[in-house]
Amino acid sequence: MSVLTLTRPLDRVADFPAIPEGWSYLDTGATAQKPQVVIDSITRAYAETYATVHRGVYSRSADMTIAYEAARQRIADFIGAGSADEIVFVRGATEGINLVAQTWAKSLKPGDRVLLSTLEHHSNIVPWQLAGLEIDVCPLTADGRIDLDAAEAMLTEQHKLVAFGHVSNVLGSVLDAKRAAKLAHKVGAKLLLDGCQAVPRMAVDVADLDCDFYVFSGHKLYGPTGIGVLWARAEILDAMPPWQGGGAMIDKVSFARTTYAPPPARFEAGTPHIVGALGLHAAIDYVADIGLDAIHAHETALVAQTRAVLRSLNSVHLYGPEDAAGIVSFNVEGVHPHDVGTILDEERVAIRAGHHCAQPLMAALGVDATARASFGVYNGPDDISALVRGIERVRKLFG
Amino acid sequence: MSVLTLTRPLDRVADFPAIPEGWSYLDTGATAQKPQVVIDSITRAYAETYATVHRGVYSRSADMTIAYEAARQRIADFIGAGSADEIVFVRGATEGINLVAQTWAKSLKPGDRVLLSTLEHHSNIVPWQLAGLEIDVCPLTADGRIDLDAAEAMLTEQHKLVAFGHVSNVLGSVLDAKRAAKLAHKVGAKLLLDGCQAVPRMAVDVADLDCDFYVFSGHKLYGPTGIGVLWARAEILDAMPPWQGGGAMIDKVSFARTTYAPPPARFEAGTPHIVGALGLHAAIDYVADIGLDAIHAHETALVAQTRAVLRSLNSVHLYGPEDAAGIVSFNVEGVHPHDVGTILDEERVAIRAGHHCAQPLMAALGVDATARASFGVYNGPDDISALVRGIERVRKLFG
Repeated sequence: MSVLTLTRPLDRVADFPAIPEGWSYLDTGATAQKPQVVIDSITRAYAETYATVHRGVYSRSADMTIAYEAARQRIADFIGAGSADEIVFVRGATEGINLVAQTWAKSLKPGDRVLLSTLEHHSNIVPWQLAGLEIDVCPLTADGRIDLDAAEAMLTEQHKLVAFGHVSNVLGSVLDAKRAAKLAHKVGAKLLLDGCQAVPRMAVDVADLDCDFYVFSGHKLYGPTGIGVLWARAEILDAMPPWQGGGAMIDKVSFARTTYAPPPARFEAGTPHIVGALGLHAAIDYVADIGLDAIHAHETALVAQTRAVLRSLNSVHLYGPEDAAGIVSFNVEGVHPHDVGTILDEERVAIRAGHHCAQPLMAALGVDATARASFGVYNGPDDISALVRGIERVRKLFG
Repeated sequence: MSVLTLTRPLDRVADFPAIPEGWSYLDTGATAQKPQVVIDSITRAYAETYATVHRGVYSRSADMTIAYEAARQRIADFIGAGSADEIVFVRGATEGINLVAQTWAKSLKPGDRVLLSTLEHHSNIVPWQLAGLEIDVCPLTADGRIDLDAAEAMLTEQHKLVAFGHVSNVLGSVLDAKRAAKLAHKVGAKLLLDGCQAVPRMAVDVADLDCDFYVFSGHKLYGPTGIGVLWARAEILDAMPPWQGGGAMIDKVSFARTTYAPPPARFEAGTPHIVGALGLHAAIDYVADIGLDAIHAHETALVAQTRAVLRSLNSVHLYGPEDAAGIVSFNVEGVHPHDVGTILDEERVAIRAGHHCAQPLMAALGVDATARASFGVYNGPDDISALVRGIERVRKLFG
């Protein structure tokens, strides 16, 4: 079986200055490397056009405000939002979910329930626990998808929110988000999707999916650290109380009475991560130029090939479905995944090993940890070959 | 009176690529321009050493974790914190104050009170309002300082927190922070200082000041956007409940019961703004290399000179004390500050005009807005000359 015939490599590694020749970076699920165009946009913002936004009466600041708001519009277009006012800049997906849990969810009443699933990232579990909500847990199918038949059976009119990962960060399983939206809406619940692993890996259109909240992180989408997005329908954002207090989110402040700005400003207290927004804009231009469908096909092919090769090695256990998006979790029999990761590092292959911030899923899989290879636009057949060579060495050392 | 003899210019403008010849950037109070060494540190992080932190078993991630934690240690040393574990990375000072208001302040009981002052930035007013706390407001002295005699008379054992700006973002007035700490502690209250305008302008040692919380923003300290610092005494952080839920801030997660990590991780849910921390480290190295005392002397001289020249123009009204740190607020009689700002922009002088996120202070000053010139290490006598030329033109146009 030839590696070369099975994948459709995008051959984009030359765009990424931090990936040296011969290094296989297979940890894009944790964070993506940055293309030169993103780095250039950040450098340009600091070295040529830097100023604050929204507050300056001078032209440099007015220009920066235009650039910052253009990033918001670009994101809205990218995910099919109704308008730029539905895009709230946050630090990352984690903060986006916490924002919803600490504002929108405050309107929930005793007896109201939230439906999560076994495969959720801690960032889509702990905020709801901290908010003190009643949580139900949808189980998975045998191949590691959120079991929507089970969800249908579990959902009641007490459920006000369904919050699911769009793509599992451990298994790569892709949610049937449209069906999830239908099931949620049928009982009058909202649907929140954690899009961290989806947005870099497939075309996402929130209008088409018919979800109500969508969150993702910029740094997993080839953008800067410290910036992410919460999208919610305009009428939902409009009804949400303020979250953090400070500059930019207010209308009038007095010690007697303070009033608040409309969304999205209401949720963006303080000077924002201006350059983060501009870098994310450049990252979206970069992936959109390649095309999300092409990226999805590329990564799906890499996953299929990786699974086929790993399956042929006995003593390797694979998790998740065959059609996973960009992510393969596995274990080598009798070897702790940390040891797998360490030996692979010596072979210049970077993977992640651990619980992947998904301890309830680990418990369901009956393991403490897995090894995980996750792909990006810079990966190709050579990376799979390097991974397999590394695993062969692991087996030899521990065999 | 010679401009050149009155100031001690640092002559650092060549370090700042975004400040072109002949442009006077006098809006450092809003955000500082970035020296090349900071931009280089950001570029290097994305283009050479990029990886996630805390989670990778491969060497690139281990190295990035060391760099990220070294930034935390550098900050601790810079402000005299007891240990790096007392440094919590946040988006900026605004988020830092909100974090305290939404965690520590939850332990306050009905009847407990908070003492703020008339000159506070909205970010040090609205979070306490949103937390539903009982607020008292310390008035100002005639020259625009927080009146600590009044504070002493107002403070009671019902007060659990005093939260003051260390340096006013509008008036530049410097708080006698040591006395504020003594007054607060005398009644058993904690002292929080908003250090946004202090940390870039003077040496700050939290142990020497004897405060309990200290917050500041990286972007005002010549660092990147989207990163800031909350410092609190270890025993205070230890006792604070978690804030945002997600990865990195947990110990064990299950749907039945989740336990949390010790500080600072407990307060840093999700992938952090890794590169922001590295850039802030570079910014601190930069200002420390110049010396905060030298910066303070430089800016104090620029303020003294600006005030002297502006006072000599009749029809210009000055606010704040003579010994203000780096900031001069003023109004030109009969001209709205926005018009002042716009005309100055045409003269290539960037100032801020507006309420400066301090509407209660504007009300106390009896104005809607002021014009504000704020200085940085790149400013010198030429910038004051340009400002004065611009104001002369304003007076001519509106005269």
